[in-house]
Amino acid sequence: MKPHRRIGTRTEELMDAIRTRIASRALATGDRLPSVRAFAETMGVSPSTVVEAYDRLAAEGVIRARRGSGFYVTGANMPPLSVGEIGPRRDRAVDPFWVSRQSLDADGTMAMPGCGWLPAEWMPNAALRRGLRELARSDSSILCDYGSTRGSLKLRRLLLGLFADEGIEAGANQLLLTGSGTQAIDLICRYLLHPGDTVLIDDPGYFNFQALLRAHRVEIVGIPHMRSGPDIAAFEAALHAYRPRLYITNSALHNPTGATMSPQTAHRLLSAAAAHDLVIVEDDILVEFEPSPSPRLAVLDGLDRVIRIGSFSKTLSASARCGYVAARADWIDGLVDLQVATSFGGPSPMATELLADVLAGGSYRKHIGELRQRLARSRDQAAQRLASLGIVPWTMPRGGFYLWCRLPDGLDSADIARRCMDEGVILAPGNVFSISQSAAPFLRFNVAQMEGDRVYEALRIAMAATR
Amino acid sequence: MKPHRRIGTRTEELMDAIRTRIASRALATGDRLPSVRAFAETMGVSPSTVVEAYDRLAAEGVIRARRGSGFYVTGANMPPLSVGEIGPRRDRAVDPFWVSRQSLDADGTMAMPGCGWLPAEWMPNAALRRGLRELARSDSSILCDYGSTRGSLKLRRLLLGLFADEGIEAGANQLLLTGSGTQAIDLICRYLLHPGDTVLIDDPGYFNFQALLRAHRVEIVGIPHMRSGPDIAAFEAALHAYRPRLYITNSALHNPTGATMSPQTAHRLLSAAAAHDLVIVEDDILVEFEPSPSPRLAVLDGLDRVIRIGSFSKTLSASARCGYVAARADWIDGLVDLQVATSFGGPSPMATELLADVLAGGSYRKHIGELRQRLARSRDQAAQRLASLGIVPWTMPRGGFYLWCRLPDGLDSADIARRCMDEGVILAPGNVFSISQSAAPFLRFNVAQMEGDRVYEALRIAMAATR
Repeated sequence: MKPHRRIGTRTEELMDAIRTRIASRALATGDRLPSVRAFAETMGVSPSTVVEAYDRLAAEGVIRARRGSGFYVTGANMPPLSVGEIGPRRDRAVDPFWVSRQSLDADGTMAMPGCGWLPAEWMPNAALRRGLRELARSDSSILCDYGSTRGSLKLRRLLLGLFADEGIEAGANQLLLTGSGTQAIDLICRYLLHPGDTVLIDDPGYFNFQALLRAHRVEIVGIPHMRSGPDIAAFEAALHAYRPRLYITNSALHNPTGATMSPQTAHRLLSAAAAHDLVIVEDDILVEFEPSPSPRLAVLDGLDRVIRIGSFSKTLSASARCGYVAARADWIDGLVDLQVATSFGGPSPMATELLADVLAGGSYRKHIGELRQRLARSRDQAAQRLASLGIVPWTMPRGGFYLWCRLPDGLDSADIARRCMDEGVILAPGNVFSISQSAAPFLRFNVAQMEGDRVYEALRIAMAATR
Repeated sequence: MKPHRRIGTRTEELMDAIRTRIASRALATGDRLPSVRAFAETMGVSPSTVVEAYDRLAAEGVIRARRGSGFYVTGANMPPLSVGEIGPRRDRAVDPFWVSRQSLDADGTMAMPGCGWLPAEWMPNAALRRGLRELARSDSSILCDYGSTRGSLKLRRLLLGLFADEGIEAGANQLLLTGSGTQAIDLICRYLLHPGDTVLIDDPGYFNFQALLRAHRVEIVGIPHMRSGPDIAAFEAALHAYRPRLYITNSALHNPTGATMSPQTAHRLLSAAAAHDLVIVEDDILVEFEPSPSPRLAVLDGLDRVIRIGSFSKTLSASARCGYVAARADWIDGLVDLQVATSFGGPSPMATELLADVLAGGSYRKHIGELRQRLARSRDQAAQRLASLGIVPWTMPRGGFYLWCRLPDGLDSADIARRCMDEGVILAPGNVFSISQSAAPFLRFNVAQMEGDRVYEALRIAMAATR
């Protein structure tokens, strides 16, 4: 009897493990379960035990077999989609929403070295105020109407000029203005993905890509991110193994690492993508922050299978709520319809008029130049002060505002982040960026939000307390 | 041989019919095919013929059986989602995108009696200009930051005050500001629906609901709309037959008919919804346009299973891009996360500050009162002038700007709309509002866009030419 009982117990343990993953939304409706072989390896059991567990869960209706393609989670009695509940939800749960929840709703008393934007006083306030007074005199159509489906032609032309400077020759029909950079990626996912498709992201990579993709009910595969860009061997292996539809990345000033893709990696990545008919979304929201342009996938590829995403939130104003997509003209046509169906239009015509005004104004280049210099100084200073606490940058970025840093041995960034929260300091702990949860010793710092002693003092106290 | 050949032929005809529906996107990936019995009845063939056709298409990989739940369209080699291609796409195809495509991108030379908004000069331009000058002096956080995840507390409090006047007592945690009314509905659909769910809409009903729902890969069932609201017997029958998850409607000043739900229909509808655990989205975007409030589902229900949607696009400014959702607090929590994941926040803090300023200003009530009076005059005038052409309102609405009118016998509104387009007049032909395509003799007119003779003259010419 003993072996039989033991097999039964293992099977039930496996079934419980799967039920827990479904309850906690680690596996959502429509998600494919791991292959029998992979799950057997992960759990250290024989494949036959996994087969038995899957068959019994299928009999219960919890999962369902599809001919030739494995087992899927059914939607039976599923409560509403809750993208935040990737793990069990608690106050201050350190999940991909940690940073957004804490920083977007922070009151003015918090320090925010974990947030992903510049302080409001670093933005071109004088130019924005001048633009608003100008806007008060503009046509009633700009003040009151929905605007055209692709967004302000004036702003699109200015963007196309910036693209041309980088070497991208594109037409106005290859550009769509959206309500934000995130919304641009969301539209692309809706347009190109079907539930159950596989999407590659970087590990570590921007946390909101995970949250966004979960809303699309797709499988997410992480590609280890190196100092020269994605691990190209892992990338090629993933193309073979998973036949992904999309890869979402930042090539330069990567979020969170600050790394910049090497020309060799960029070329090899595009060749592999072409061989596997993979579409790439290059989120280039920090394009203006590099001292000189590094290789861009959109430039090399000429907007064929690479889609460029951008926004004005980091350079001019996040409050304006305007992003954009540059892509093949036929894809833009499809995205236009989709944006009308789901938002009845793009960004505010008032906001795009204001942005165009500031962008075309004489002070824009000067503002960007000053931001770069100020960030270079802040970066050096933050790196030095963090080093004195034993917190060391993984790489020194060429620009932007992020520093991806490793804590002294044995310290867990989620612990440190929870403790710093009690001191009124919002951090960005490593694992919110890691689909494999392998970045526990890391923190992402925003050097623009670290003036004064407060952040360093909170870190010192938290580190001392957790040792 | 003959009977055998005939059976073969019928099977192949059925297979072709299904292939055509898939190619034209009438059936999209993941859509469930009609049941064998239903499809046999529709096509006038025996169930065994349908079974044979389904089995052969499944063998080809075009559709796929799921145990116990019928046949589904597979995604094999499907091109990207194209919500506009519900029917074959042509220039000026009269589909649910006809009105949006034509009116949003119209240049200033077109007359737009088919569009869904007021002329910019009817909006409170002076108050908006004053508000923009005020905005130019506001805090840099309003000009530059993302804003809180639920949107401006100032604007939410003003809205809650308006709700209280109607009899809805709700807390600030029951309200989420969004980028538009449409985006509010889109978030709700993402939160509550799974692909393959069934959703009820009105027939005729607002065309963009069809376009939006198609992006969610759900089944759409139309409920005939009467002068007292939805046909309640058909509504109850649909609850039994399809177990829908959601019903999306306008209770008062219904788009396109202008009808207002009777108290009896409202009560019976809510009782039926409770019995079947149906959630109702009440799109109340024209709430301010009634001379006195008629029964609202959200008021009767107290925001339990009814979700209220609204926007400022029809009363203050569409350019501000701001809508809202009022619902149960736990649903709002889920929608907040979803809006962060897919848009990284809600409407522009600048825009919500501007709207709050105008809404709180002394002139708001006066502006709304003037709009109502002006619309009442325009409605009477348009009804008279249309009647002289033999075009007769189906009902006389209590407010708002729509007149749903029947053409003289034998005339097709899509023909008239195509011809009027050549005269620079954009119409809203009946079938863009009808999931059953049963509204060909109807047109929706926007009485605020019909000053002067141009629209009437174009209609006269088009009607004469098509007779």
